[in-house]
Amino acid sequence: MKRLDMFGLLKKDMDYIEQELYRSISGDDLLHETSLHLLKAGGKRLRPVFVLMGGKFGEYDLQKLMRVAVPLELIHMASLVHDDVIDDADTRRGQLTVKSKWDNKIAMYTGDFIYAKALEIVTQLPNPEIHQILSKAMVEMSIGEMEQIRDFFNTGQSVRRYMLRIRRKTALLIAVSCQLGAVAVDANPKYSRQLYRYGYNVGMAFQIQDDLLDLCGTEKQIGKPPGSDIRQGNITLPVIYALQDKEIRGPLLHELTRIHELNGECDVSTAISLIKKSAGIQRAEELASRYINKALDALSELPDYKTKRNLKDIAHFVTRRSY
Amino acid sequence: MKRLDMFGLLKKDMDYIEQELYRSISGDDLLHETSLHLLKAGGKRLRPVFVLMGGKFGEYDLQKLMRVAVPLELIHMASLVHDDVIDDADTRRGQLTVKSKWDNKIAMYTGDFIYAKALEIVTQLPNPEIHQILSKAMVEMSIGEMEQIRDFFNTGQSVRRYMLRIRRKTALLIAVSCQLGAVAVDANPKYSRQLYRYGYNVGMAFQIQDDLLDLCGTEKQIGKPPGSDIRQGNITLPVIYALQDKEIRGPLLHELTRIHELNGECDVSTAISLIKKSAGIQRAEELASRYINKALDALSELPDYKTKRNLKDIAHFVTRRSY
Repeated sequence: MKRLDMFGLLKKDMDYIEQELYRSISGDDLLHETSLHLLKAGGKRLRPVFVLMGGKFGEYDLQKLMRVAVPLELIHMASLVHDDVIDDADTRRGQLTVKSKWDNKIAMYTGDFIYAKALEIVTQLPNPEIHQILSKAMVEMSIGEMEQIRDFFNTGQSVRRYMLRIRRKTALLIAVSCQLGAVAVDANPKYSRQLYRYGYNVGMAFQIQDDLLDLCGTEKQIGKPPGSDIRQGNITLPVIYALQDKEIRGPLLHELTRIHELNGECDVSTAISLIKKSAGIQRAEELASRYINKALDALSELPDYKTKRNLKDIAHFVTRRSY
Repeated sequence: MKRLDMFGLLKKDMDYIEQELYRSISGDDLLHETSLHLLKAGGKRLRPVFVLMGGKFGEYDLQKLMRVAVPLELIHMASLVHDDVIDDADTRRGQLTVKSKWDNKIAMYTGDFIYAKALEIVTQLPNPEIHQILSKAMVEMSIGEMEQIRDFFNTGQSVRRYMLRIRRKTALLIAVSCQLGAVAVDANPKYSRQLYRYGYNVGMAFQIQDDLLDLCGTEKQIGKPPGSDIRQGNITLPVIYALQDKEIRGPLLHELTRIHELNGECDVSTAISLIKKSAGIQRAEELASRYINKALDALSELPDYKTKRNLKDIAHFVTRRSY
């Protein structure tokens, strides 16, 4: 999966972050091997990019920013390994998952190890505010993960419930990435608040787009077979909207029940076709756009024209991306 | 399981810690339920006791000490829930485990939630040293847990390898509990170093005694069927010593292979008898005593006669306990 290197200026610093990510996971042989497997699978490194961008609003210091950027990417990675255990996923980013190449237990401890390594690096920064913000986000993330399990195949869930879940699961960590970049370099607190708002809204749009891609993308684009969410019973926004369509609701519920009964080990193309026939895709796209607009709005009170333009570009990229 | 309330003086403060432990786990309904189940199963609360004792060597402040004691007990609890997933354990402390009452996935996220809650509380303290010490210990713990998986049924492992594993798995967190109690109240660094040494050696003895109890205790005493370690393939010190006995080695290896082949779903009383016939139990007891002596030795440079006497009592309790 392609790293998000839209910005020539950041490339050198992002290369350094990448190198520090590799350095961070040294330890026991097996843990190093499983963590390396995860790192090599790549990723957009969206959180480190946001940290560095946030750092542009204070006295930019790569050493300080690295100690936030690397932990945030590690926390994201650790949550993915634990997610794969829950989702019983065999591939992610086009690579075998740790739980599939090794097993669930090794995946669980790999996640624990990566979480701990993240903390070891971030605690090198003396600012207690950073640790408080980060630990609160981790609590919310773990609640969001549990909510996801509980909502599997819950076809009665509201749009609001979906929003709360993706807020915890995705948006908060992205919000915190933007915010902590600024906090790490002692930026004006007004800026870090606006960056949080920007990140939160971009994060919401990002997850909606992720859920759309799972329905509309190709395996090559998304690194795993499309329809994975439906197979796992992860009821996403386009599905909730599709279930509100009187003509689609009946047959879609029928399909979802069948998929549930077969534990997702079946063809899901009928369900996907039904969703695409409804207004679900379009309505979800519209909501993602509204979040992007809110994100852009949050930028208005920030200085630094150039970094703002880059943040705008990322926001637009999020809803147009195909990976 | 009985709380370690040997000290009238600590009882009131330990009641407060207990109350804060219960308060700490509020959150999503299901996570609250699973965490509550864990808390209610009890435990000796050894780590909080050590934190409070460490706090006696500086300006004792229960509010500060709570913010170390509660997180340390939570980290211990979280590691136990994840352990139960690995060990496929149905009971612990005489109660059903989370993975058994709910399932492995819920146990995994319960652990993640409790880890995050621990961090949320400890980050209320501004002292970066505390966070650095704690995160390093968490990294080591997760490495120790992975080592344990890798050493399952490894009958060729050395005593040294066993020591390294229990150091990471148990002794470091106990060492850090003693140390951080002192650090939290700004005790003389000389004292916190000695407390670390005390805790480390008590922790080693504690784990050896735990492993002995698994072989020699009754189900009522230890809250789970004896021989659980052997069934899981966890090769403990008495077993390693027993394997050094020329007469015992052959039949014991044969039994361990049989248990491995049956995935531990069999009677292990022959193996236990063989170990008891060897000098393994006695030699392990002797080593535990040597660690206790080192722990007592570490106390010699500390002031406060009364707290020292209490710490001596705990050290002696560790090798004599039957729960």
